[in-house]
Amino acid sequence: MLKVEHIGVAVTSLTDSIILFEKLLNTPCYKTEKVDTEKVQTAFFKQGETKIELLEPTAEDSVIKKFIDKKGEGIHHIAFEVKDIFSEMQRLQNEGFVLLNEQPKHGADNKLVCFLHPKNTNGVLIELCQEKV
Amino acid sequence: MLKVEHIGVAVTSLTDSIILFEKLLNTPCYKTEKVDTEKVQTAFFKQGETKIELLEPTAEDSVIKKFIDKKGEGIHHIAFEVKDIFSEMQRLQNEGFVLLNEQPKHGADNKLVCFLHPKNTNGVLIELCQEKV
Repeated sequence: MLKVEHIGVAVTSLTDSIILFEKLLNTPCYKTEKVDTEKVQTAFFKQGETKIELLEPTAEDSVIKKFIDKKGEGIHHIAFEVKDIFSEMQRLQNEGFVLLNEQPKHGADNKLVCFLHPKNTNGVLIELCQEKV
Repeated sequence: MLKVEHIGVAVTSLTDSIILFEKLLNTPCYKTEKVDTEKVQTAFFKQGETKIELLEPTAEDSVIKKFIDKKGEGIHHIAFEVKDIFSEMQRLQNEGFVLLNEQPKHGADNKLVCFLHPKNTNGVLIELCQEKV
């Protein structure tokens, strides 16, 4: 893994949270993006080599809606950038980790992504991501 | 704020979790440190410019023990490195954020630290930290 590419934060109102995080991080939101496959609206902030990604659910059956209903707003996942997502998925599977998707899927921010089951990672939801070429 | 300095993860057994995170991150744990003031034993891993800090409680009244009892193991906080912790604490207070400690305190890894109340940050526990000189 190369670096922490982003940290995903589940929020109920992107409008309110963009204002909040602009004050908190002292940096402007530089991009918003709707991701239909994940049923979320996202907003991005830059902090060094890492992004903070706010996630607002756009449907009742969005996984982010379910997360907020169960745990409240807060940190949802950590995404690590990898050089080759296919070989990293294979390596982690060989180590006994459980992939939540067997094939990389299309995520926000022009990425191929794969999630690991948090039951094997001390409750931390981990995303692997690789920039699409 | 300069970068994501580290991400803190609450765990019940540092021994087990060090083995787990070495496999997960494919990098060795490079340091462990007991922090008596916070009643935790910590372990560090490097990922790009960011560290992953595992936190095991060393006492029943450790805040990490309370966190795990309430929410289970998982991501506990995000720490941002700042250039001047005093001026950043003042700026955030002026913006309406609530500081959990009025003066910077001594944290792990040779840092001065200050936490923000998560009620004002969408449930995300934020730490400011600055390397001690």
